[in-house]
This record gives sequence, structure tokens and C-alpha cells, in this order.
Amino acid sequence: MSVQGYNPRTGEPFGDPVEATSDSEVDRLCEAAEVAYRSWSAWSAVDRASVLDLVADRLDGESELLISTADSETALGVPRLTTELKRTTNQLRMFAEVLREGSYIEAMIDSPDADIIPPRPDVRRMLRPLGVVAVYSASNFPFALATVGSDTASALAAGCAVVVKSHSAHPNTSRETGRIVTKALADGNAPEGLFSVIYGTQSGVRLVQHPRVKAAGFTGSIGGGRALYDLANSRPDPIPFYGELGSINPTVILPNAAADRPSEIAGGFAQSVTMGVGQFCTNPGLLFAPSSIVEALGAAVTDSTGGAMLNERMCDSYRSAVDTLSHSDLVSLVATGTAPDEAWAGKPALFQVPLETFEANLEKLTEENFGPAALVVTYEAVADIIPVLSRLPGTLTGTVHASDSEHADATAVANELRKIAGRLIYNGWPTGIALAWAMQHGGPWPATTNAIHTSIGVPGIYRWLAPVTYQTWPDALLPPELQDANPLGITRRRDGTLAKH
Amino acid sequence: MSVQGYNPRTGEPFGDPVEATSDSEVDRLCEAAEVAYRSWSAWSAVDRASVLDLVADRLDGESELLISTADSETALGVPRLTTELKRTTNQLRMFAEVLREGSYIEAMIDSPDADIIPPRPDVRRMLRPLGVVAVYSASNFPFALATVGSDTASALAAGCAVVVKSHSAHPNTSRETGRIVTKALADGNAPEGLFSVIYGTQSGVRLVQHPRVKAAGFTGSIGGGRALYDLANSRPDPIPFYGELGSINPTVILPNAAADRPSEIAGGFAQSVTMGVGQFCTNPGLLFAPSSIVEALGAAVTDSTGGAMLNERMCDSYRSAVDTLSHSDLVSLVATGTAPDEAWAGKPALFQVPLETFEANLEKLTEENFGPAALVVTYEAVADIIPVLSRLPGTLTGTVHASDSEHADATAVANELRKIAGRLIYNGWPTGIALAWAMQHGGPWPATTNAIHTSIGVPGIYRWLAPVTYQTWPDALLPPELQDANPLGITRRRDGTLAKH
Repeated sequence: MSVQGYNPRTGEPFGDPVEATSDSEVDRLCEAAEVAYRSWSAWSAVDRASVLDLVADRLDGESELLISTADSETALGVPRLTTELKRTTNQLRMFAEVLREGSYIEAMIDSPDADIIPPRPDVRRMLRPLGVVAVYSASNFPFALATVGSDTASALAAGCAVVVKSHSAHPNTSRETGRIVTKALADGNAPEGLFSVIYGTQSGVRLVQHPRVKAAGFTGSIGGGRALYDLANSRPDPIPFYGELGSINPTVILPNAAADRPSEIAGGFAQSVTMGVGQFCTNPGLLFAPSSIVEALGAAVTDSTGGAMLNERMCDSYRSAVDTLSHSDLVSLVATGTAPDEAWAGKPALFQVPLETFEANLEKLTEENFGPAALVVTYEAVADIIPVLSRLPGTLTGTVHASDSEHADATAVANELRKIAGRLIYNGWPTGIALAWAMQHGGPWPATTNAIHTSIGVPGIYRWLAPVTYQTWPDALLPPELQDANPLGITRRRDGTLAKH
Repeated sequence: MSVQGYNPRTGEPFGDPVEATSDSEVDRLCEAAEVAYRSWSAWSAVDRASVLDLVADRLDGESELLISTADSETALGVPRLTTELKRTTNQLRMFAEVLREGSYIEAMIDSPDADIIPPRPDVRRMLRPLGVVAVYSASNFPFALATVGSDTASALAAGCAVVVKSHSAHPNTSRETGRIVTKALADGNAPEGLFSVIYGTQSGVRLVQHPRVKAAGFTGSIGGGRALYDLANSRPDPIPFYGELGSINPTVILPNAAADRPSEIAGGFAQSVTMGVGQFCTNPGLLFAPSSIVEALGAAVTDSTGGAMLNERMCDSYRSAVDTLSHSDLVSLVATGTAPDEAWAGKPALFQVPLETFEANLEKLTEENFGPAALVVTYEAVADIIPVLSRLPGTLTGTVHASDSEHADATAVANELRKIAGRLIYNGWPTGIALAWAMQHGGPWPATTNAIHTSIGVPGIYRWLAPVTYQTWPDALLPPELQDANPLGITRRRDGTLAKH
């Protein structure tokens, strides 16, 4: 068995086939990762930071090869892949900064008090890395959500070891990235086996069930994610499975915003919905808008261009969904864009449906259609859409376009969207995700398997860390993070108060 | 169908039977909880704090009735139940203080920067309550881990609504507690339906599958916990299930500690292992000790007294396990204690086994035996036990007894115990759990279903909170926690740094 890359523009094979990883090799890599974890987790945070910086620099140093390889097997284009690789290396550097700042380990110290009920001994708590982490690469971000993307970067930063199941749509990019990362880790004196890449569907099935694996991160489809999630939970010792599965990203355009700036909104929408040929988890696939703006939205889509999609299956599935909607009695086609004459090309498409019809067919019309298509639900009064919003499936984002005179309506809409969405955007678009402490990429099922955790942004590191408390422990034997003198100078929560004490 | 309480001292029924909650009533209570959650989650944290204080005061005000009822159906004794109730009300007050301090919502603000890759808009993140929470009461802490115990207190504090599945072993205590809490919430003007109590096994099965329920907390057996865990995960929309299932709490007594203070260690051990008739999740059920101290441990157990256990099933299961061990070829009986002549009484028992035999039968000899029994594994050299410790099943605690000359060995032992335990105790005993930010009650499976979260201590609140990010949102429309001026004066993480800014 082997994994073959393809050029989505031509449909022809790209590169040599990569051998699928055998079960015994998966086992060997997991055992090696466990050994590496024991050593890596004992490294100081600042030493791990230097290694992350080195990995970032080495990836930047081979950017030309990485970008050209990824472009050949994803067709995402050199400009997009250039910024995506930079985002990926900046993400590694962001976690290096987090490690240097140090407070991410959430040190908490409580003084003894014998007079309260129950009496309190000296207790000191911090976070510790969980162990070996399984990472399942996404197809749509061959750098930022793949081999050394946000899951891998946050897990290595946390002090965990990582085994990456590469995505079958970009085996050559995975192999090249893996080679560079492995070399950089070795040059940084990181323990051998800390990071490895495996290939083929069966290897991923084996991985999530391996006893050494203590948690998993996944970005992909609801079907594939659910299957692995069920395997993780049916283990004799279940492990946390953090999956990001699907999202329709509703956008509400309020009446005055639609009236005041129709072409700006329509242009922003068309750009967002066609970005990466619509293959973004945060693609704005569902709009609520007054019918007055539909013409402008349609014109913008007509002017827009699609492109080759990531793989044949995704293209077939997108074309088939668009075809089904085009022949549906429920919705009507507003506009289609163009696409270059490429093997697996997808064309932008916009559909519309009146609110009443949408409400009556909500489940059917809120299925994610991965690609550059969207559905506009036309409404007359804002009050009519309010009760519908919280009935939408869980989603990564919710967006409002409002004018200054519509603050009350914007708040009412946000209060409903908050129940189903992890990130709320005002007068913007959901595609494009910042790297920051305050970023949140998650939401109720099926947006993510666990609404409590984010898979992008600094807090993503908390998926790979578990607390340990030291009770009445001699100061000199404590980890430095918990010693009385605070030798690392980090912010800690002491007797309930956060400070550098 | 109804649930009948029993007096464990006599084996006779106690109180009137309580009617089992029907499926339709569970549904009604979940819907009412959802409505209440929408209102309660919009309350300010300080207003919720006042209500928690009121609930605590009311429970204290009816302590006599509560303690006498609980004593009649648990036989835990008035002194223990008196401190347990006080611990329960202090736990409510602790969360009230956490709400007033305010930083628990983890506000994070990052400034815009258009020049980085990817560009960063203004993003602001805080935690929000998840929704309706299902709480499954434990039998062994009829106050502190039951109707209004740590799960309920932390969930109400978070802004969630709670439906409690009461434990079948103390229906009258549950009903009285429920009555007081419901009245206090009403008097505090909390929304109707915010909190309710249900009865009977089927009601608990219905509850964890109800679409309105967004997370569950559980304390109990591996069997019962796993069954509910599997139901939670097999929902069309899986929900987080936080279970605390079982723990053997290994204790390592180092040679010099054993030689220096045998009677102090033996006395502390006997007190800890018989506390609450051994029915503590943190019961020290497994010791590693030099054979020199076994005689002292045995003498202390001989002098110790058991008592009536919580219910007939638990008593039968304990007696049968002790009987099996007593007739086992693998271990030998060191000592038994006494027990009053009560219907469901359990006697303390101590067994021993050489390290080699233990290692060869590790899985069999590390099954939790809920009750006042322990197994001493005798060793010759500390180096021999080191490789065994990390092979033990996941556990809530790990304890070391060491002398000042044994710091190196204590650290080596702790480094191994840390892999399997959530809390490490030095020269103490694991029973007795402080209320504090730094407390941690969790560990790898089966100690808890999710090693990342704690079910006791302030961070237990994070099980019921999910992040939401506001992107480029008008300042005036943001929740006060995220507004620029920081009107609540809470500590926030701004551009990566924690401070009151």
C-alpha cells in the first residue's frame, strides 16, 4: 500500500508514492515518542522555546521547496501558500514566546490554614504535559493545520511528543515538512523520536488506539472525525479527542448595513467565500440578508473565480452538492462565478431561499457544502430571524454586519449567535484567523468535538496539559515554577490572586 | 417505581420511599433548566455570588435536620457529617469569592496589528457558561459530592443550570437538601427551574442523553461511570462527561522514614484507611514499604475499628473482596480490625505481598477494593519499586513518606508517581481534600475520565465554561469583562500579559 499525491490542476499523479506506515512501525514510533516525551517534558520551557524557533527558521529557510511542493499537490497557489507557511512558522514562534513568558503553566499556590473546614495544607499546582499526542492533518491547510501546524506546535510547546498522521492529499508536502522538522529537532538536540509522520488510513486508526497515545487533535470532515472520536472513546482507557469537524459560519446582514454599503459587503463576501476555493473551515456558507442586497451579492459572485479543489473526492462532492441545489425546489440559484479550465475545478455559486422555507427545511439546508458556495436566507424583519439563529448547528463563527444605528439589533443577534458559535465577528468576515491568546477556533458540536477547547490560538496548548498538585512538599524538591522564591519570575495565582509572587 | 432509603446500621428501611422521576418529568426539568440558564447566565458574577452565599447560609441553618437524616441513611456519623456539611457550605462560599474576584472568566485582549502574518484584528476572549449541566451524586459524600456538592456548586457559579441525579443510597438526604436549595434559590430571586433533583436509575440514563444537557459531572464506580460516559459520547452531539471513577492511591514508605517513625506512620495510615469506613476515593489502598514496618502497620490496623458501610451492595462487595484475598495464594493477611455489631458493617483489613509477586500479578492486585482494606507491597531496595510505579493504573493521589536524608529517592518516586497521579503528598495522607485554587482531584483513567480537569477545587469551574471571542466588536456592545476601560477591575491577559488592565 502507498499514498500517491496528485496535481489537482491536471488530475495527474505528482511525485513518487509514499509507502503506507505499517502497524508495527506505528507501534515503534509511539514507543519511541514515549521515550522522547520523558526527556522532552523535563526540559525547561525556555529550552523548548529555542528549539521551536529553530524549527521555524529551518522551515522558512526551505520555503521555496515547501511552497512549490504544496502548490503542486493542493493547487492553493503560491501567494496563499507563502502567507500560510509564514503563519505556520510565526505560530511556532508565538508558542516559543509563550514558553518564555512562562505563566501558561498556571502555577497556583495556597498557604496552609489549619483553622478552616476542611483544614488546608500547603498545596501547589501546575500543569504538566500529558504524553504522546496524535495529530491528524487537515487537507485544506497543508502547513498551518498539518504536519507542523497548530496541533503539533502547541503539543511540542507543551512538552509532549507528537506522531502526525499526514493527510492523503499532500503526502509529498508532509514528507518534506517532516524531513525539515526532524532535522531541526535533531540539530536542536531534542530527543530522537519526539516527532514523526505516518501515512495511510490504517496507520491513523492504529494511532488513536495505541496505549502510549494520551490525546489526539484532528481537523477534517464530520464523518472521518466522528469515526476516530468513537475509537478514542471506546478504548479501555479513553483519551481526549479534540476534533474540528464542520462549520457553516452564519453571517447576518442587518437592513441599514445592507442599504448603506451593499457593494462593500458584497465584495467582502465574495472574497471571503472564494478564498482558498471556499475550502476554509470558516467559509461564510450561510447569509441572512434583506432581499435588497441579493442582487449585489450575486453580481460579486458572478465576477468571482473559483479554482482547482484539493482533491478529486472534494471536487466531486462539491459539484454534486451544487448540482443538487441547482435542481432543488427549495432554493433558487442567484449566480455562479467562473473557474479556470482545470481538472478538479470548482465554480463559486450563490443560492437564495426565503426565511419561511429555510425554517421549514432547516436541517437539510444547513449541511456544510465544502467549497465556494453560499446560501442567502432572505428576511423582512430582524425579529423574524432571532428565533432561528440558535437553532442552527454548532459553528466556529458567527458574523454581523450592522450600521451605527443598529447596535441594539446587532447585540440581539450576537446573543443568539453566541449560543452556537465560538467567535463573533462585527463588520468583518470569518476567514483569516489571527494568532493570539484571545483567538478561539471552536464551538458546539459539530464545529468541534469539545466546545471548551480551541484548536488555534495560544489556549490550544491547554489541550495537552494536565494539572498536578504537590501537597506539603519540601520547597527544594518542588519544580522551580512552584518554589517559594519564584526563581523563574512567572505570574502565579497565590492565595487566589494573580501576580508575580 | 420508587427509591427507598435504608439505615445501614440496622438494614431497615428509613423514611418514606421517594418516587422515581419519569422520563417526561426529566424532559420537563431539562427544558425548564434551559430557560433558567438563559436568564441566570446573564446575571453578573457578583449577583450569582450572593445567591451562593444565601444557599450556604440556609443549609447551615438546617444543619441539624440534614446531618441527622444523612446519618440515618449513610451511618457516616454525626462528627464526620458535621464537618462534611460545613465543607459543603464553605465550598459554595469559596465559589462566591471566586465570582467576586472575577478573573476566573479568563479575559484576554489582543490589540490589532496589520503588519504581522496573519494580520491581527482586535480580538477579545472570555469564558461563558455552557448551558444545562447533569450532576450525578456520589454515595460516599452525601453533602460534599452530592446534591449541592462540588459539581453543582461549580456549575451554578459558572452560570449554568443543574439537574442532579440523586444517589439511591440517600434519597431522603437528597430530598431535604433539594428542598432547602430550591427555597434559597427562589428567595434569592434565581430563575425557577435553575436547579432540580431527580430519582431512580432510568432518570439518570435519560438525563445524560437529553439534548438540553451540555455536560455532565459524575462521582462513583468504574462500571456505572463508564456506562454513562459511553452514553454521553454516543449522542448525536457528544457532550463532555467528567467522571471520577476509581483510585487506589499508592503510598511509598521509604526505608529511613519507616525506621525513624514507624508508629507515627502506622497510626496515620490506620486513621486514613479507616476514615469513613474506607469509603473515600482517596483511600490509601496500596502501600510500598520495607517489611520492617509491616508489624507496626498491622498493629495499628488491629487497633482500628470499621463500621456500617453505605449500603448493602457496597458491604457485600467489600466482604467478598476481603474474603477472596484472605483465601488467595498470592497475598497473606496481616491483620484485621474490629467493627461494631451493625447490619452492614465492614472490618478493616491489611494484606501483604512481596514485590516480585505483586509485579507478576499487577493487574489483579491493583483492583480497587472500596472499603477499609489495604495491601502492603514489601520491597528491599527503592530502586526495585521505581519501574513498577508508573505501571500502576491511573490514580487520584500518590504519597511518599521520607526522611530528610531521602530527598533524592523521594524525588525519584515522585517523578514516577506524577505519571499516574494527579496529586502528590509528602509525609501526609491522601484523605481529606482542601478547598483551594491549587487543589486537584483527578488523574489518568480510571481516576477520572479526563486527566485534564479536576472535580474538586476552584479549577473545577472550568468544566462548565467555554470560550467565546469577539472580533472587531464595538466597545460599548462588549460584555463589561472585555470593555477597554475594564469597568469590573478584573485581572486580564492583555497582549499576552496578566494584569489589572
